[in-house]
Amino acid sequence: MHHRIHHRAFTDRLMSAADAARLVQPGMTVAMSGFTGAGYPKAVPGALAEHMQQAHDAGQAFKINVLTGASTAPELDGVLAKADGMNLRLPYMSDPELRRRINDGEMEYMDIHLSHVAQHAWFGFYGKIDLAIVEVVGVTAEGQLIPSSSVGNNKTWLEMADKVIIEVNEEQSAAMDGMHDIYYGTALPPHRQPVPITTVKDRIGQPYLDVDVSKVIAVVETKAPDRLSPFAPVDATSEKIADHLLDFLDHEIRAGRLTEKLLPIQSGVGNIANAVLAGLSRGGYKGLQSYTEVIQDGMLSLIKDGTLEFASATSFSLSEAGIAEFNQNVDYYRERILLRPQEMSNHPEVIRRLGCIALNGMIEADIYGNVNSTNVVGSHVMNGIGGSGDFARNGYLSVFMSPSIAKGGKISGIVPMASHVDHTEHDTMILITEQGLADLRGLSPKQRAQVIIDNCAHPDYRPMLQDYFDRARKNSYGKHTPHLLDEALSWHQRYIETGDMQPVRSGLLADAR
Amino acid sequence: MHHRIHHRAFTDRLMSAADAARLVQPGMTVAMSGFTGAGYPKAVPGALAEHMQQAHDAGQAFKINVLTGASTAPELDGVLAKADGMNLRLPYMSDPELRRRINDGEMEYMDIHLSHVAQHAWFGFYGKIDLAIVEVVGVTAEGQLIPSSSVGNNKTWLEMADKVIIEVNEEQSAAMDGMHDIYYGTALPPHRQPVPITTVKDRIGQPYLDVDVSKVIAVVETKAPDRLSPFAPVDATSEKIADHLLDFLDHEIRAGRLTEKLLPIQSGVGNIANAVLAGLSRGGYKGLQSYTEVIQDGMLSLIKDGTLEFASATSFSLSEAGIAEFNQNVDYYRERILLRPQEMSNHPEVIRRLGCIALNGMIEADIYGNVNSTNVVGSHVMNGIGGSGDFARNGYLSVFMSPSIAKGGKISGIVPMASHVDHTEHDTMILITEQGLADLRGLSPKQRAQVIIDNCAHPDYRPMLQDYFDRARKNSYGKHTPHLLDEALSWHQRYIETGDMQPVRSGLLADAR
Repeated sequence: MHHRIHHRAFTDRLMSAADAARLVQPGMTVAMSGFTGAGYPKAVPGALAEHMQQAHDAGQAFKINVLTGASTAPELDGVLAKADGMNLRLPYMSDPELRRRINDGEMEYMDIHLSHVAQHAWFGFYGKIDLAIVEVVGVTAEGQLIPSSSVGNNKTWLEMADKVIIEVNEEQSAAMDGMHDIYYGTALPPHRQPVPITTVKDRIGQPYLDVDVSKVIAVVETKAPDRLSPFAPVDATSEKIADHLLDFLDHEIRAGRLTEKLLPIQSGVGNIANAVLAGLSRGGYKGLQSYTEVIQDGMLSLIKDGTLEFASATSFSLSEAGIAEFNQNVDYYRERILLRPQEMSNHPEVIRRLGCIALNGMIEADIYGNVNSTNVVGSHVMNGIGGSGDFARNGYLSVFMSPSIAKGGKISGIVPMASHVDHTEHDTMILITEQGLADLRGLSPKQRAQVIIDNCAHPDYRPMLQDYFDRARKNSYGKHTPHLLDEALSWHQRYIETGDMQPVRSGLLADAR
Repeated sequence: MHHRIHHRAFTDRLMSAADAARLVQPGMTVAMSGFTGAGYPKAVPGALAEHMQQAHDAGQAFKINVLTGASTAPELDGVLAKADGMNLRLPYMSDPELRRRINDGEMEYMDIHLSHVAQHAWFGFYGKIDLAIVEVVGVTAEGQLIPSSSVGNNKTWLEMADKVIIEVNEEQSAAMDGMHDIYYGTALPPHRQPVPITTVKDRIGQPYLDVDVSKVIAVVETKAPDRLSPFAPVDATSEKIADHLLDFLDHEIRAGRLTEKLLPIQSGVGNIANAVLAGLSRGGYKGLQSYTEVIQDGMLSLIKDGTLEFASATSFSLSEAGIAEFNQNVDYYRERILLRPQEMSNHPEVIRRLGCIALNGMIEADIYGNVNSTNVVGSHVMNGIGGSGDFARNGYLSVFMSPSIAKGGKISGIVPMASHVDHTEHDTMILITEQGLADLRGLSPKQRAQVIIDNCAHPDYRPMLQDYFDRARKNSYGKHTPHLLDEALSWHQRYIETGDMQPVRSGLLADAR
């Protein structure tokens, strides 16, 4: 009984999820654990959603503001969105129902650099935090919390919240004990000191989260797995993108700009990221390091085969097979993986110091290298910017990758003008599609445009882009960043109106055929 | 004779500017000193421009690539642009003839975060640097260089360039000796260490620039003032903007988010900046600190009257009166001003640690808080991004200021969609026009839009913006960042076509009157 809870004050506050959820009041700002579908509370949000639904059925308003680390899972974002229980959600998210509500204009969503969330909370920008709901692996005899499969903003939430609800999840491996590095040396300006991380492996904090036990109003025991992140098999397009990246890294090594140990790699999740990681293994790299946000299955493989020597992150995001592999060899992985607060995993200071190689996906790039990571056709948010800005602005290399077309060719990943800009021309160095790689370093806007059109655009869109660029160079108001504003966003508008960016196929230019 | 040059190896290489200029070959990449019209070479660029002109007259090509700290002056950017002597220029610039050539598409210009320039050079992104031309105040007996009125990227240029030309400018006050702090602790990843600045005043380097004397191929003596930066008298619009900012700072102090010492202030140059500085003095602040790029006349006044206790920058930018004041009280100012390399004055790590209050101008903002700092109607570059991105992304507060209208009302500073984005919605917290202040902290895009329209838009444009926003909320494809892409940039297009963003006045809606 309660073998994960070794402190009396916590066992004294044990209750059911339903009872704990009753402690949440309408209008509260509730900060929850969770990052990329890991380490989020599994039970209280569901019980809370039921209360909300009952209130709504009875004609009563019941919504809260929800702050997290990043994306969570159906058991948190999903149920609260379905219950129409959120006024505001921040930051990164990925739940389909939550996304639908945001894009239907039914609720507010704030997209924030993941390195900014904790400090903005401390600065007071989100107001008072009434309650924190945090999943942990266990409670020590000293009343400290053993962090779960993600750290995210939990340190900040536990410190700032007026009250705290703890979920102790027996399903999470107790062997994670010792893998976390919680830094308590942060401060508000003007009292800040340098973050003392100079290598990926540096431990600068403690393995446990502190909590003021007098704030803990409920402890709930759970036994449920994280949202599983099935390992997507690598498709041909992703493999081509990865090949272009690996060729480029070879080229940089030959040019003497990188060593064979490269520099610490930041990598997202998903198909392209998996292809890149697999490519690093195939490419014979050994002893690499990763300073990143998420440990996915591919990372575990690289650690196992020696490609990766060490990985620092803030969260796991594993498949069922990945979890099994991790649990089976946890002693091996514990020596090679560190989970930090996202304020540290994404800290601009550390990313610039270490010189990370930032590998991120994108929705679209324009011919001048401005990147849209968040808003489809400028208005429909997908997931959010995540940590891509932290790494792209501050890393040694900022790489953005995407297939050159989407929706069977109806959308071009390279457009005349990005319909939303998350990463400006000042922050993007390398663009890659399955067509090729554009190295934008040391190029002016016009030089960048030609390289992007030639190397990255899909053949179906390349002549259209070249035509736009050629005419813009002649007729633009200014010729530093040539644009024809009356058609710069016409591709997106055509997609909205016809479902296809191609004018001929869309029927708009049928006469011209 | 040569009383500023106390080392034989340097006097041995004394020659005329014309002779030194002959050492510059076509196609070279030449890195020059200079930041905001201070500390740039005064003689060699002019002599070089004459050589170029002669070559061009004889039908020969003669262009070079020019790297600097930031903007220079007619004697550098002006003469080289007039001679059509540049293939490429980077980073920030302000010369009218240079701007004309860039926007006529006659040459390439790269706009780079000022904190990135030095490291990108070291990373090899700009290729080999053939020659550095650097102005100094003098040469010590040990062969070290006493920096001039700006530091900029000079440390990097002297280290990286194959050859070096030194201009020793007798006009620059010798009393600046000791005011500089040149940090030699930088390194390339993975060897970087924390930048040990924890307060504005911290000295972490040496007062002099090192140079490998074997690389010095010419030394030229000059006696010429910096480009003078006349102190612009504060106009009524700027005063209103400053008043809104000062009210806001008071509000933040009352809310407990700032103390009466505020946090280190970064401030640009120009009319609004002058009004803000004057306001800080009028407001009774004492003992403030500034961590910024440029010391202008207004800063000197604040230091003199005790409003500012200390200012760290990378350059002066003074009027004739300001220079006289500085020279007259140089011992006082030397204790209260430090000039650093721009890599340090603009370092993201230090800016975030210190928690700077970033005060920058802008060309336009859109209703969602995206800011355009560089490209008029999306294509015509004004000066460049400068350090605004370094401070806005990393500071405690990021403030952008502009009159609500320009060109007698024909341009609105608040538009439906920014025609170029330099600072994304993720990086802008406070917008100010003479109409009022929009506090975007903790707001979703739609919430931001209403505050910006209500508080910042000019009354002549407010109903148009509200109409756009209302219709976009109804008809946008996605309703997270509502936009109507077929008219999002129509205001800019109308300005290009008619010279006026107002449809009625422009004649386009004459029938509707």
